[in-house]
Amino acid sequence: MKGAILWFTGLSGAGKTTISRLVAERLRRQGYRAEVLDGDLVREHLSKGLGFSREDRDTNVRRIGLVARLLARNGVVALVAAISPYRDAREEARRDTLADKAHFVEVYVKCDLATLAARDVKGLYKKAADGSLPNFTGVSDPYEEPADPDLTLRTDAGTPDERAAEVMEFIARRRLLADAAREADVRYPDY
Amino acid sequence: MKGAILWFTGLSGAGKTTISRLVAERLRRQGYRAEVLDGDLVREHLSKGLGFSREDRDTNVRRIGLVARLLARNGVVALVAAISPYRDAREEARRDTLADKAHFVEVYVKCDLATLAARDVKGLYKKAADGSLPNFTGVSDPYEEPADPDLTLRTDAGTPDERAAEVMEFIARRRLLADAAREADVRYPDY
Repeated sequence: MKGAILWFTGLSGAGKTTISRLVAERLRRQGYRAEVLDGDLVREHLSKGLGFSREDRDTNVRRIGLVARLLARNGVVALVAAISPYRDAREEARRDTLADKAHFVEVYVKCDLATLAARDVKGLYKKAADGSLPNFTGVSDPYEEPADPDLTLRTDAGTPDERAAEVMEFIARRRLLADAAREADVRYPDY
Repeated sequence: MKGAILWFTGLSGAGKTTISRLVAERLRRQGYRAEVLDGDLVREHLSKGLGFSREDRDTNVRRIGLVARLLARNGVVALVAAISPYRDAREEARRDTLADKAHFVEVYVKCDLATLAARDVKGLYKKAADGSLPNFTGVSDPYEEPADPDLTLRTDAGTPDERAAEVMEFIARRRLLADAAREADVRYPDY
């Protein structure tokens, strides 16, 4: 069994968690094992106490990566939804995953900063702009765009369902899950 | 697919990691998916910066528990080898695992303190006794024995192989892995 990591990177509010949950649902409906590891889960359960320095962000990404790899090498599709702003950290995750003989797909969830700031679902961009929320990726902290992502999802327009369908098409086209774990009935909630 | 957590608790040097690695090897040889999550792995990768207060130890156990559950609910056998000195934390892990519809087996790896101190493979008991290593479980920090472990392995005498065989017999007798993930060829190194 050969699983995969789908690594969704992008700015806050771009749709990483929403899309990865939709993809996980679709995969489970097809009988695959899928787990969403998103930034909130990890901050709450694996990385409490870590801050927003580059070092802490890298540590955070390494922890997500380790858990995702443990799943992927056991035939599960691990959907990581984390800003993961630094290119080197994402590349390290890719190398380690390939060394474990699982697939790694970098999915760039791309949305214009102006659009994100205008939507501002959680009110974070406003706080970042007025300085009350420091170290905010894309505003006051760096985001290094993927140089050569496996897949880019534009989320300035369209619906999350359309983007999830794009991911599913990508998976099918690449025959990514030919060796993944599969069974008739997969039902459980996300953590 | 229904995996399991085998949770090895006991004092430092009692044989938790050694035995769990042997069990993992045997399981893999039978085609099961198995992962060892031991204290060192977790301290190095998931819990750097945590100390030895009760709160930090509990946080550590919760993190191991989360990773183990993610594996177990996907059909993998997660072998946790961690001192995990507090009964409440272990019980929490059990409850959460059962809620996820996976099996949970508490394995008490039991060895007399005098025997451990005499063996003192890593020289830690000497340091604990002379006070240069504080908060050492069983010496200067509490260890709460399991009240009703599913399995107790005495490691004062005998070989790790004999104890691993006991675990395998327990698994077979309880038909614990009837629904676990299985395949012909499982080969990968422990993290």
